[in-house]
Amino acid sequence: MNFIDIVNKTKKSVPLTDSEIDYLVNSYVSGEILDYQMSAWLMAVCLNGLTEKETVALTFAMRDTGITLSFDLDCITADKHSTGGVGDKTTLIIAPIVAACGVAVPKMSGRGLGHTGGTIDKLESISGYRTEIPASEFFDIVKTTGFSVIAQSGKISPADKKIYSLRNATGTVDSIPLICASIMSKKLAMNADCLLLDVKWGSGAFMKTKEEAQKLADLMEKVGKSAGKKCRAVVTDMNEPLGNCIGNALEVRESVELLQGKIKGRLYDTCIELASDMLELAGMGTHDECVEMAENAVNSGKALDVFRQTVKLHGGNEKICDDVELLPKAKFSHVIYAPKDVEIVSINTEELGMASLILGAGRISKDDEIDNTAGIVLEFSVGEKISVDAPLMTLYSSVCSDFSESAMRAYNALKFRTLTSDVTTLT
Amino acid sequence: MNFIDIVNKTKKSVPLTDSEIDYLVNSYVSGEILDYQMSAWLMAVCLNGLTEKETVALTFAMRDTGITLSFDLDCITADKHSTGGVGDKTTLIIAPIVAACGVAVPKMSGRGLGHTGGTIDKLESISGYRTEIPASEFFDIVKTTGFSVIAQSGKISPADKKIYSLRNATGTVDSIPLICASIMSKKLAMNADCLLLDVKWGSGAFMKTKEEAQKLADLMEKVGKSAGKKCRAVVTDMNEPLGNCIGNALEVRESVELLQGKIKGRLYDTCIELASDMLELAGMGTHDECVEMAENAVNSGKALDVFRQTVKLHGGNEKICDDVELLPKAKFSHVIYAPKDVEIVSINTEELGMASLILGAGRISKDDEIDNTAGIVLEFSVGEKISVDAPLMTLYSSVCSDFSESAMRAYNALKFRTLTSDVTTLT
Repeated sequence: MNFIDIVNKTKKSVPLTDSEIDYLVNSYVSGEILDYQMSAWLMAVCLNGLTEKETVALTFAMRDTGITLSFDLDCITADKHSTGGVGDKTTLIIAPIVAACGVAVPKMSGRGLGHTGGTIDKLESISGYRTEIPASEFFDIVKTTGFSVIAQSGKISPADKKIYSLRNATGTVDSIPLICASIMSKKLAMNADCLLLDVKWGSGAFMKTKEEAQKLADLMEKVGKSAGKKCRAVVTDMNEPLGNCIGNALEVRESVELLQGKIKGRLYDTCIELASDMLELAGMGTHDECVEMAENAVNSGKALDVFRQTVKLHGGNEKICDDVELLPKAKFSHVIYAPKDVEIVSINTEELGMASLILGAGRISKDDEIDNTAGIVLEFSVGEKISVDAPLMTLYSSVCSDFSESAMRAYNALKFRTLTSDVTTLT
Repeated sequence: MNFIDIVNKTKKSVPLTDSEIDYLVNSYVSGEILDYQMSAWLMAVCLNGLTEKETVALTFAMRDTGITLSFDLDCITADKHSTGGVGDKTTLIIAPIVAACGVAVPKMSGRGLGHTGGTIDKLESISGYRTEIPASEFFDIVKTTGFSVIAQSGKISPADKKIYSLRNATGTVDSIPLICASIMSKKLAMNADCLLLDVKWGSGAFMKTKEEAQKLADLMEKVGKSAGKKCRAVVTDMNEPLGNCIGNALEVRESVELLQGKIKGRLYDTCIELASDMLELAGMGTHDECVEMAENAVNSGKALDVFRQTVKLHGGNEKICDDVELLPKAKFSHVIYAPKDVEIVSINTEELGMASLILGAGRISKDDEIDNTAGIVLEFSVGEKISVDAPLMTLYSSVCSDFSESAMRAYNALKFRTLTSDVTTLT
């Protein structure tokens, strides 16, 4: 078996055998196959695709380059993954809800690259919160509270770590089988009994069309089921930000307020829907029963209790669960007002994410420091009417006091319709 | 300008601008773009191709990473390139013929990778012959005899050297635009006035079909003309070896014997045709006049004189031009006889090349030593009838006294038809 024969097969769209895929992945991790060879193969995959069978084999081979966890718990375990998007803080809300209902959620999350931080970055905006803890402590927290999130470990799917950085540098990111194998190799190594996969689509997501998102969702679900998991993939809308807050501490604040029962609307509905999907997968009841269970977990304050306990066990200041004002605050802020009476027609969510990145909420390269106070709070939803001089949004930053660029980008991300007889077009 | 934007364009089949291609090539040579990035781009080219305009820009950019020669001669200069094949010794014959007719042939040639050596390896089988000489000496020999061949220099198209080894390791060799740019960047840097490009097709050539060979020929001719060269590309048959000898010293022997006027037939006809093509390109007369001129160069002994002088100036033993027995000889030989009365129907020329490689005549990797005495002499042509027990071919080697594997491969490369009533099938 050698690399040239393998790459030539993929180049000619001849499916690889399982053992060829094993050889490819293991030889790459061991250094026998070199970066410049792997990147050629990755490009061939981007252009020619892989079969479902090859994708399953690739995912399993990547998973098996590292450890696979096993949980010694009395209850069923469930994991979720979201492909991410602007303002996507669903993990912070759904995991405590599901844990409060008796299904454990042991989760590993990444740091973010791009517009905002990942779940780990968000949690780290809580003063004292430790995301890099020993495995034993992670298991203990899951056992105690039902929920813990730790930072990605090099021991889980090391092949993914190596392949992902290569893809990032070689223009080979946008391939559905490669995205699937990257996500699923880590999820299968985490080894929860149930898996809910939330594939976002729209202007604020990596998948721009619903069709592409559906393809990825179907493929991930098949791979999960091939590994014997209870697995469901859903496709959700990311054409506008999820919730009103974008940015790390701002999103923790919004999550806590939701768990406090203070926020309803689209973010709440999405979270209840996803949480009840997880509960249903875990066999906790019918869909309607699971929806009720999830709503009760919020209304009773039990989900907030789980979150509070977990934050405390991670060394974080759990008082933020009762007083969100204790979360870190930005030094600088800037309000953008409506220049006329307008209706918000749509949002270029990616552009809003870019504005948030400029404010310091995200990373351009993986070693960049994040400003966890930075971000944007929207004062409207799509379709809402705003009166002249009412605030549209507030930008926050501790590292950037000059809001000219971020404000321009945030403002330009909105598409208005003027509500007066004035025909001047707002851009 | 950055690599990711460029690779994404090629991935989506969006043509690159000339300046993007310049940036890509120069940044790769300077080390700013890394091997693993370039190999991803090369794979995208293998699968999506390049436009003619992009291929021209790529060739020019590669050429311009090194020096471009200029000749200060009273006569016109002509260069040729053959894509190579089993037993292809045409340069050794055509160049002296063309030089004898008053058109200078300054040539740079490579060492061979695969079944037999390149022109440089063949010349080095002449005792004392130096192929790595200073540029000034090369110019002097061309001025004196009209013809010199030197080994490939790192100063000519260094981008090609770097890209070629990467392609070899990444399964990105078989791309017509990349092959074209590799060959033409070196040829254009050599900067002769006229260029004859001989694209071989068939079982003994890299291009297996005539259609593919024609595509490469057309593209190379267009690139040559874009650079202002008098350029012609021809497609020639390599379904059987060119001449009866395969192997370095054996091919020099055959070339000298042809220049001595002792060999006619397919090799002679091909060489006269290609030589007269070069003369015609150089404006030396009509096609018929050029054919006559080329034949006269052989019959008068003038071409042999040019070859003798060139060998001498390169430090080689020029006496081989009068006595081919002075060429190095193999220690071991093995004759294969016809097992019945047979007719040779066809040859798997590549397999014959592989047999020659096993004997020591070629290289598997670029640092392998060549046995310049090794090779095969065929005692027949395709279509010829051979009587039982008459010799079919002789294998030679100085490094391998066990002929079992090479003889089996060489024998199996022949497809026979039995001429007796015996129905046993020969394989």
